[in-house]
Amino acid sequence: MQTLHIIKIGGSIANNDDRLATFLENFVQIDTPKIVVHGGGTAATDLCNRLSIPVQMRDGRRITDKPALEVAVMVYAGLINKTIVARLQALSCNALGLSGADLNMIPAKKREHPDIDYGYVGDITPENINTYFIRRLLDEQVVPVFPAITHDGNGQLLNTNADAIASALTIALTSKYDTHLTYCFEKPGVLLDVEDDDSWIDRIDSDKYIQLKKDGIINEGMIPKLDTAFEALQQNVDHVHIKHADNLLNNIGTELTL
Amino acid sequence: MQTLHIIKIGGSIANNDDRLATFLENFVQIDTPKIVVHGGGTAATDLCNRLSIPVQMRDGRRITDKPALEVAVMVYAGLINKTIVARLQALSCNALGLSGADLNMIPAKKREHPDIDYGYVGDITPENINTYFIRRLLDEQVVPVFPAITHDGNGQLLNTNADAIASALTIALTSKYDTHLTYCFEKPGVLLDVEDDDSWIDRIDSDKYIQLKKDGIINEGMIPKLDTAFEALQQNVDHVHIKHADNLLNNIGTELTL
Repeated sequence: MQTLHIIKIGGSIANNDDRLATFLENFVQIDTPKIVVHGGGTAATDLCNRLSIPVQMRDGRRITDKPALEVAVMVYAGLINKTIVARLQALSCNALGLSGADLNMIPAKKREHPDIDYGYVGDITPENINTYFIRRLLDEQVVPVFPAITHDGNGQLLNTNADAIASALTIALTSKYDTHLTYCFEKPGVLLDVEDDDSWIDRIDSDKYIQLKKDGIINEGMIPKLDTAFEALQQNVDHVHIKHADNLLNNIGTELTL
Repeated sequence: MQTLHIIKIGGSIANNDDRLATFLENFVQIDTPKIVVHGGGTAATDLCNRLSIPVQMRDGRRITDKPALEVAVMVYAGLINKTIVARLQALSCNALGLSGADLNMIPAKKREHPDIDYGYVGDITPENINTYFIRRLLDEQVVPVFPAITHDGNGQLLNTNADAIASALTIALTSKYDTHLTYCFEKPGVLLDVEDDDSWIDRIDSDKYIQLKKDGIINEGMIPKLDTAFEALQQNVDHVHIKHADNLLNNIGTELTL
């Protein structure tokens, strides 16, 4: 089977000109089919602040009312997505930005929660992803670039966690490709001490993850990311890594195994 | 040859929920290959105002410094584009938003002018448009939705007049399709008296246009639009109309002829 790399980059890369440039120069050297998924949280927060839109968070997830959704769409699907696409094109990489609404790529369901109204937040299931067009595009050497925006199929755009999109996309494509899911961020991997960047571990399996979570060693902000990463492995994704964006092309980072 | 409709909608439609809904419901009834091109000027101006970014205009064209470009990308390629795409998807129309950077659809050249620095404004030529992918997408019943954003091929996004994009796209595709270019806006057509909506004319040819311009009868804001429209006819586009968005499916409006 052909190898497919799905690489998620966090806001700290997407919002930093130099880090983004380094990442993209490395990324285009991957000579297999590849996909980028990006967040952009801090830029959306900055714009919310400039527009005096209050930012509400709960359990590490943004509460998305209508003004916050509009900011997310503008920043993620607009500014950050098109900046990445234009820069990839400059590197002769035929990028195409795809929100979940474009080509109906990622239908989502507005989150229902008994106690918390998350607002315009969409949850996704891998089997609803429109893999037909993704595969057609990959066959044409196109590189899809997905922002953290989906839709409900009834005309409503939704904010969806980028880690979850990357995981779901990889799961949806794992029967057709040898799938490599990589989360790139500003740390060298999963840390045993959030204050110490040298404390990253080479490898973590699901038993160790459960133990480290129970012992309170895994930083709380990492838990949703690791949950989506292990979910990918459980759903037959072949390889999952968490690493510093600068280490995209080398072996430094944390490998996740079942 | 197959018919292709390329429909440009102005900001007064794109920014108005009800007008946009009516337009899109009509638009999806066109049963040939079709493309939407949209502006969004007033929404970008509103966001500039909220962010205290001064809006500069000259000769009816926006002067685009870096903050104004970011706003244009966020509003045109982000919020308005994805809103249109999501609503078309809700109408079972398989829309795909495409800035000029996506798939390198519309390479542009930063405008050089001896006296005026227009900033990040891109001029386009029809022969540079990437018709290969547009045709592939149209063959797959995809409906491209183009915002007024292009790129220079070196990583720089550019603001480009939506009328000019619609005209250039139609010119680029006219050898392959029977092309229909329609500019939809909030007036019933070309007016002989800008204060009187009943003064629209059925038909205008290039001689009459030159005469009406000379006599100062054509409203100044209409001149760039009519120039791009007549340019399309001169470059072998088959049909060009200017009409009210509500009249998309009927014959009311101004037909342009050479």
